[in-house]
Amino acid sequence: MSTAVAADISPAARRAAAEGLVALGAQMHAEGWSRATSSNYSVRLSADPLRLLVTASGKHKDRLTTDDFVLIDDTGAAIEPGAPKSSAETMLHVVLGRDAGAGAIVHTHSVWGTLLSDAYATTGVLTLSGYEMLKALPGIKTHDTSVELAIFPNTQDIAALSAELSERIKAGDEAVRYGFLIHKHGLYTWASDLDGARACVEALEFLFECEGRKLSLR
Amino acid sequence: MSTAVAADISPAARRAAAEGLVALGAQMHAEGWSRATSSNYSVRLSADPLRLLVTASGKHKDRLTTDDFVLIDDTGAAIEPGAPKSSAETMLHVVLGRDAGAGAIVHTHSVWGTLLSDAYATTGVLTLSGYEMLKALPGIKTHDTSVELAIFPNTQDIAALSAELSERIKAGDEAVRYGFLIHKHGLYTWASDLDGARACVEALEFLFECEGRKLSLR
Amino acid sequence: MSTAVAADISPAARRAAAEGLVALGAQMHAEGWSRATSSNYSVRLSADPLRLLVTASGKHKDRLTTDDFVLIDDTGAAIEPGAPKSSAETMLHVVLGRDAGAGAIVHTHSVWGTLLSDAYATTGVLTLSGYEMLKALPGIKTHDTSVELAIFPNTQDIAALSAELSERIKAGDEAVRYGFLIHKHGLYTWASDLDGARACVEALEFLFECEGRKLSLR
Amino acid sequence: MSTAVAADISPAARRAAAEGLVALGAQMHAEGWSRATSSNYSVRLSADPLRLLVTASGKHKDRLTTDDFVLIDDTGAAIEPGAPKSSAETMLHVVLGRDAGAGAIVHTHSVWGTLLSDAYATTGVLTLSGYEMLKALPGIKTHDTSVELAIFPNTQDIAALSAELSERIKAGDEAVRYGFLIHKHGLYTWASDLDGARACVEALEFLFECEGRKLSLR
Repeated sequence: MSTAVAADISPAARRAAAEGLVALGAQMHAEGWSRATSSNYSVRLSADPLRLLVTASGKHKDRLTTDDFVLIDDTGAAIEPGAPKSSAETMLHVVLGRDAGAGAIVHTHSVWGTLLSDAYATTGVLTLSGYEMLKALPGIKTHDTSVELAIFPNTQDIAALSAELSERIKAGDEAVRYGFLIHKHGLYTWASDLDGARACVEALEFLFECEGRKLSLR
Repeated sequence: MSTAVAADISPAARRAAAEGLVALGAQMHAEGWSRATSSNYSVRLSADPLRLLVTASGKHKDRLTTDDFVLIDDTGAAIEPGAPKSSAETMLHVVLGRDAGAGAIVHTHSVWGTLLSDAYATTGVLTLSGYEMLKALPGIKTHDTSVELAIFPNTQDIAALSAELSERIKAGDEAVRYGFLIHKHGLYTWASDLDGARACVEALEFLFECEGRKLSLR
Repeated sequence: MSTAVAADISPAARRAAAEGLVALGAQMHAEGWSRATSSNYSVRLSADPLRLLVTASGKHKDRLTTDDFVLIDDTGAAIEPGAPKSSAETMLHVVLGRDAGAGAIVHTHSVWGTLLSDAYATTGVLTLSGYEMLKALPGIKTHDTSVELAIFPNTQDIAALSAELSERIKAGDEAVRYGFLIHKHGLYTWASDLDGARACVEALEFLFECEGRKLSLR
Repeated sequence: MSTAVAADISPAARRAAAEGLVALGAQMHAEGWSRATSSNYSVRLSADPLRLLVTASGKHKDRLTTDDFVLIDDTGAAIEPGAPKSSAETMLHVVLGRDAGAGAIVHTHSVWGTLLSDAYATTGVLTLSGYEMLKALPGIKTHDTSVELAIFPNTQDIAALSAELSERIKAGDEAVRYGFLIHKHGLYTWASDLDGARACVEALEFLFECEGRKLSLR
């Protein structure tokens, strides 16, 4: 809330995080995963107290500048006066930074993710099995495994969704360990740093395309 | 008609609009939505009198220069002598700038839009429901909604199509509120400014791909 | 055959043609239509005597330089001593430059073109009907038309294929008016200049994708 | 093992190989074939003694630098002290450099390759027949041919897979002549130099897309 708090964050670390997120936005837009000002990304600059640098709301993601980010605390509030409005989904980032230990969080909107979130909506989970690409996810050492991604119903009540997500993470639910989908909305995934989170989104989108195209084969 | 009229338009505003449209053309071509010299775009520089800066006809859209635009009035005529020929579909831009209050208009030709305009031709409307991405359209605040896009039969009689479009807009027809399709031809969408119109085309194309691929699933 | 003959060609025109073809190669490779050193392109520098600047054989098309072209005569032979080997399909370019009046010829290999050449191989023709995008082809003024593209069986006997093509063009066969496919091989299309030929390949590939995806819909 | 051995390799040749592999990584990532730090590539700098320059493990392939490579010997061990860890699949490169005479080896992970490796897993082979694009593979002069690619079960036991691969190559098995797939994992292909290997991966991925999309047609 005070500028003193923001002063605890190294300007160099903040600048590096912003630059990394600007580059990520350009890539995610080019991939078609962050179209029409959708998506939001964050980097955790401090765990205690929680400090996240989150994308400002409503920006075309291929044209972000280092000014298009908001430093927030564990309530999702902007720490600095006069900051742009942070994403409407800021509290999901807070939950992931606080309860899942995420160092970087990427939320994207892809066609294949949207289709799969709908195709498997009734089961509430997408299962990815036996792919070498799963080894890109943190800690996975073999293709001979299954990863589950929870599919949450979509909602505009982000507070309620954040609370449910927090509960499932704290309960050790495997279906929110690497990421999750929101129905006809998008993907959240995260890792200890931005390079790792980028690997997660690339791996999961690759696998979504595999699963989606498989549903189109004769 | 007179250069005096054109002089009412600020050269800086006109240059900014042209530069924005040049950049849009490069993107739309790269996406595959403005191939083979197809498509046309405009920015409204004045509402009263109506002044639109419209793409000249027959240009490859990835190679537009700021000279490839025509300043037109509410009859679709070029205001300045010696201007290049404006798009054959100029009158649709006039209707949208005049009757729909559009500040920027983007007309594109995509594969998915073409397919959907054909798949739903008999019903005359494409319905998009329940997608988070709908929130990119002006004024939509929740995914829990349906957007209808009218599908007009294709025609080379642009005057007749313009008249029908004008009538439907003035009648408050919801199916021409955010955009519309022309059968096996393309999409028109618009917003208050070019950044907003870009968000509309990106969102609608994303949703076309979702709907088109869904029709390909088993 | 003699350098005197080549001297008839303006160095500036030749350089411009080579630069245009270098840029085309970069685009065609990026689109996925000229992969793995496939494809060949030409510009006609003189009609009488026939002089075509054709891509040299075996080059990655995203890395062409202005040295990767061969000036050929109406026998398909290189005019200049020490020229690189021209494409194995050079005689098809000669036929198109001589009998179809082509000023620029683009031969590409695309996935959708390959699939359609196989799906319609038994009928020997691909028909494209009712698309606005057809208006990108030379002389077409309305979507309310049908364009036929012949599908030739593939062969390594280019002399025989060239003779058959020449015969069909001279006979006024509509199915070789805008382009043709070779079975599981690729597309030839042409126009009076390179910009026009680029519009033809973009329009036809767009329509191939439309037709191919339509075959995948439920 | 000693720096003396590494000194046998010309620094210029090594630098050229690293630069070629950096450029390849950028392309392969852009194509979607080397996502999420997956894939590995190598160039053989010496046949006897065997010296391969292999990608270091765990790098995003669109951001390789010339330092992200390891010079290895015929045991797969790094020759120079302090070298980064080479890919876990290094021994497959050794087998190909030693037993298949490969001068450059490209291993990628594509969606279509993954799908086909699964669709034809029970037969253990993918057959590509009658395509002009097959002529991009070394020594193939006509489309009127069939190429077989073995599909190996996936495994984390690279030593066992390498031994089996070596045996099949030495036995003259046609299904490991141009490349092979690993189930739900990826493609290996190779040629006498990096430009040739690039042509192989482009041609095979093109053909994978053809075969995969063909399975999606009605």
